[in-house]
Amino acid sequence: MDLKKGEFLYEGKAKKIWASENKGRYIIEYKDDLTAFNAEKKATMEGKGALNNAISAYLLGYLNSKGVPTHFLEAVDERHQIVKAVKIVPLEVVLRNITTGSLCRRLGVEESLQLPRPLVEFYLKDDALGDPLVTEDHALLFGWATREELDTMKVLTLKVNDLLRELFEKHGIVLVDFKLEFGRTEEGELVVADEISPDTCRFWDRSTGDRLDKDRFRKDLGDVLGAYREIWRRLSTEEA
Amino acid sequence: MDLKKGEFLYEGKAKKIWASENKGRYIIEYKDDLTAFNAEKKATMEGKGALNNAISAYLLGYLNSKGVPTHFLEAVDERHQIVKAVKIVPLEVVLRNITTGSLCRRLGVEESLQLPRPLVEFYLKDDALGDPLVTEDHALLFGWATREELDTMKVLTLKVNDLLRELFEKHGIVLVDFKLEFGRTEEGELVVADEISPDTCRFWDRSTGDRLDKDRFRKDLGDVLGAYREIWRRLSTEEA
Repeated sequence: MDLKKGEFLYEGKAKKIWASENKGRYIIEYKDDLTAFNAEKKATMEGKGALNNAISAYLLGYLNSKGVPTHFLEAVDERHQIVKAVKIVPLEVVLRNITTGSLCRRLGVEESLQLPRPLVEFYLKDDALGDPLVTEDHALLFGWATREELDTMKVLTLKVNDLLRELFEKHGIVLVDFKLEFGRTEEGELVVADEISPDTCRFWDRSTGDRLDKDRFRKDLGDVLGAYREIWRRLSTEEA
Repeated sequence: MDLKKGEFLYEGKAKKIWASENKGRYIIEYKDDLTAFNAEKKATMEGKGALNNAISAYLLGYLNSKGVPTHFLEAVDERHQIVKAVKIVPLEVVLRNITTGSLCRRLGVEESLQLPRPLVEFYLKDDALGDPLVTEDHALLFGWATREELDTMKVLTLKVNDLLRELFEKHGIVLVDFKLEFGRTEEGELVVADEISPDTCRFWDRSTGDRLDKDRFRKDLGDVLGAYREIWRRLSTEEA
């Protein structure tokens, strides 16, 4: 597919987005930038963009193949993906299998608790406000999503969890939690958008408990890129 | 009813609670203390306790008479009420008819917006955590309330809103929002507990827009006690 970039549309913390020559397609560039705590902590790590491009292409492609609609179409080179043009729903959907991170800080609940069922939360996508937690009623009353969109996002997020938990389990990795974004295509379909990578998931090594995700950066655990490489190594290696 | 205080049970920001000689009854003392922003701002105003005791006794008694179960039984003197002994559910229930305050700061939504329907929110009752917003799923997963309790609290809160909006409307006052707490009696009934007063509601004068509640203290608008007195004057005056 052609990679001729059209109009520059948006620069996020870890990606840039362009229009393409095809009205229904965007081009995404994965950057080497890494941010945490609402961009209070920043770094650039050479190769991070390429790893997340590879991992995210793999995982979004996997979801597509299993019947979960995503915006992903094709990774065209080390840094670039072609995706469906979507209008992003201004809510981040977080699914947690195990308690950790902001949930524990905010609600004072125990760390590393295996939840009896997955917890799905919505956060308003607004950096200036620090992406605050919202209830479904907030989303409905302030017009951030419709009832049908909320229901679809929950169903798809739970399905993504089932699929990715099983996939990572095969590679000796526990899927602790993850964040999804959703977008509406020009045809009106609600699809998983953005990326799925160690920037947006927590991955724990099943045997050692090692953190294989952005928590290495958040908590200064060292060898951030090594963890991302390890995720990609396991995903791209034929399982035994 | 006898006012002989038994075991001292609890001191909150605006009230103290004792057991009584009757196992199923507590004694509540309304203090003159006023706090805001999770007790970062504090003051003592002579007469505030007596006013809130009177207002809260009136409003809780009114709800009892209209079929909404509350813990309130009797105001026995200027500062004291006899209430049913309850175990408090660790959630604060907030109902908003109009947007203002923390909702607008947190979610960036417009101030003084009339909502198309009342918004009900749950907050975890935990001063150390700053009473964080929670979703119903948080409450269920972490055992703060059962499905049935959440549903009952929502139904009762909406009913309280209907009753109090109508009551205050007759007195030229707009009920903007309010906070309720709930408790379970020894017989297992879920009832409205705590207090309903200018400490826990926002009241706006319908004609002038004047704030007649704790926002006068929060925002240094002056004459805090005068506003509380005005609420009590209107409630205790026969309407035209």
